[in-house]
Amino acid sequence: MTERIFRYLREQQPETPCLVIDLDVVEGNFRRMRELLPTAHIFYAVKANPAAQILSRLANLGSKFDAASRGEIELVQANGVSADRISFGNTIKKERDIARAYERGVRLFAVDCEAEVEKIARAAPGSKVFCRILCDGEGAEWPLSRKFGCVPEMAPRVLEHAHRLGLVAHGVSFHVGSQQRNPLMWNRALASTAAIFREMAERGIQLQMVNLGGGFPTKYLKDVPAVQAYGRAIFDALKTHFGNRIPETIIEPGRGMVGNAGILEAEVVLVSNKSDDPKDIRWVYLDVGKFHGLAETMDEAIRYPIRTPRDGDDLIPCVLAGPTCDSADVMYEKEPYMLPFSLEIGDKVLFEGTGAYTTTYSSRDFNGMSGLRQIVI
Amino acid sequence: MTERIFRYLREQQPETPCLVIDLDVVEGNFRRMRELLPTAHIFYAVKANPAAQILSRLANLGSKFDAASRGEIELVQANGVSADRISFGNTIKKERDIARAYERGVRLFAVDCEAEVEKIARAAPGSKVFCRILCDGEGAEWPLSRKFGCVPEMAPRVLEHAHRLGLVAHGVSFHVGSQQRNPLMWNRALASTAAIFREMAERGIQLQMVNLGGGFPTKYLKDVPAVQAYGRAIFDALKTHFGNRIPETIIEPGRGMVGNAGILEAEVVLVSNKSDDPKDIRWVYLDVGKFHGLAETMDEAIRYPIRTPRDGDDLIPCVLAGPTCDSADVMYEKEPYMLPFSLEIGDKVLFEGTGAYTTTYSSRDFNGMSGLRQIVI
Repeated sequence: MTERIFRYLREQQPETPCLVIDLDVVEGNFRRMRELLPTAHIFYAVKANPAAQILSRLANLGSKFDAASRGEIELVQANGVSADRISFGNTIKKERDIARAYERGVRLFAVDCEAEVEKIARAAPGSKVFCRILCDGEGAEWPLSRKFGCVPEMAPRVLEHAHRLGLVAHGVSFHVGSQQRNPLMWNRALASTAAIFREMAERGIQLQMVNLGGGFPTKYLKDVPAVQAYGRAIFDALKTHFGNRIPETIIEPGRGMVGNAGILEAEVVLVSNKSDDPKDIRWVYLDVGKFHGLAETMDEAIRYPIRTPRDGDDLIPCVLAGPTCDSADVMYEKEPYMLPFSLEIGDKVLFEGTGAYTTTYSSRDFNGMSGLRQIVI
Repeated sequence: MTERIFRYLREQQPETPCLVIDLDVVEGNFRRMRELLPTAHIFYAVKANPAAQILSRLANLGSKFDAASRGEIELVQANGVSADRISFGNTIKKERDIARAYERGVRLFAVDCEAEVEKIARAAPGSKVFCRILCDGEGAEWPLSRKFGCVPEMAPRVLEHAHRLGLVAHGVSFHVGSQQRNPLMWNRALASTAAIFREMAERGIQLQMVNLGGGFPTKYLKDVPAVQAYGRAIFDALKTHFGNRIPETIIEPGRGMVGNAGILEAEVVLVSNKSDDPKDIRWVYLDVGKFHGLAETMDEAIRYPIRTPRDGDDLIPCVLAGPTCDSADVMYEKEPYMLPFSLEIGDKVLFEGTGAYTTTYSSRDFNGMSGLRQIVI
């Protein structure tokens, strides 16, 4: 699937660390999602990777876009996307940014409390809002905190408040947690969502839309269920809870759209031991680390598959660390990474599945090292 | 001490989030360190805050510089610093970066293993090297892992290897952990260092220098011992372990030089509750968070003092979170932050002690939000 990237790296030998994205893989992901969930509107979560070429390829395919900020809205529009294809999906917005989005034509906003509804009523009158509800992130590798959303019981009041202030109470959103490995998690959230639809109907307000969020996983070291399983589980849950009156649906893939489209090439800078004790673990230092692209190794949450030119040789456990003078810049230590014993200074290693949440997390110039470079092919 | 910053913020009302640095505070810190440790060479740890104005003010005061990378060496030289005032203090260096530093005149390098010694012998022949040793970070708010340094017992072999390859085995370095609150920690590390000096003397090699590292704390919410206590403790430990033959000493303050010189102004974007349960905690969302400057709130390690325009009003516990769509962008949750009950959307809040390790950790444009802006006055 990423043969193009391997060829590019072999032929061009770019300065490391360097992330290469294969646009054809992104396109393949988009087409597969549209096939599996043909009635859902696909809003690409721009924050996963806002590269202009990704945005314009997806725009040409008919994708819509989930923006986290005024900056992302401007970026998406600069890549040829009209405002009716943009959702301002962050529940935390400055009122002046809402006003700016409204001026630019955006009419769809996320909320999770009455104060946010009031900002939107003032700055973006008549717009559609959807209320984010909390749902526990069990089964996700990158579980969500309670940061976004209110308890489902509170949502009807938030939505009714919107309705009374002249907004369109449009629907409900949730997020089952990034890199969610259990397709059944959507079932539980959809049960709560259907209850909110019923409660609102009793109040005379017809909700129209369910935003199923993201959470579609990409393959790292652990196996994940096939995308088909997700499509099926979501469709079944919608049938179970909404019967024949299935609402309009939105999905917001980020990682699932671009994660497997990227490979990060890095160089081994140092291989060393801390003592003469043969039981003491080996340290391998790369020219990329937690602060220049691999932030999601935080708490060792995501274990990327790593390829080396010495795969097949005997393996030994290694602590894997980045190049900065920061002692927190260690990627895998609690659970060491098995790497070839023969790995040497100067070897190139490849991190697979690094298309999402890498360049964007990168620091600008921490330790005087420039941020992660990205090449889109 | 930061009256100038308060006045600047009041008069200029910069767009938030914004970090303002008072250069006079930096200068005061430098002068105080020189007074307290008059014989030590002060190498400012550039990574703490590489703003050009800070570098040139310190250069004019006679400071030397600890650089983490080729990029930092170039930056420091661009601000008028000659190569003999620069230490390449990272133990993890690409050989081509060592060569570049050598071409630019740098002759002082950190090592912690034989492989790194060999790179320096090839790329920077005849240079001085110092060996970093491990010392446990007990007492530090931001403890170091075992990432840098070897066990003290291994250091003589590393230094002798350097000597045999034509380098100058110059000394030993250690780091007691950033934001170290216990001045006695230097005593333990200096005992190990003195033992290495003796061992090397027996092998016929006279070490000259002890690099005492950084770790000098700045004041956040918890009280820290006065700088005087550190100077005294270090001087006493040097006397104890080296008697009348006290070696040349280096210190590498970063946080201690610039931490208290900066104040970060942010805006309250949202104040909300997740449910109607009155016991449910309040959430306060700011326009700055973990990914745009306040990375050191990771694991809630550092608790910054926060001022609000409503100080003096009744306080309630709050979860404090950043503005991005990232659920990990939460600063204080396990131990909530007491903030005024009356705090409102639009209020400006001030984070004190944010001069170090803020702008540099900031992501470039995560979630389409630009990195932390810095103004130096």
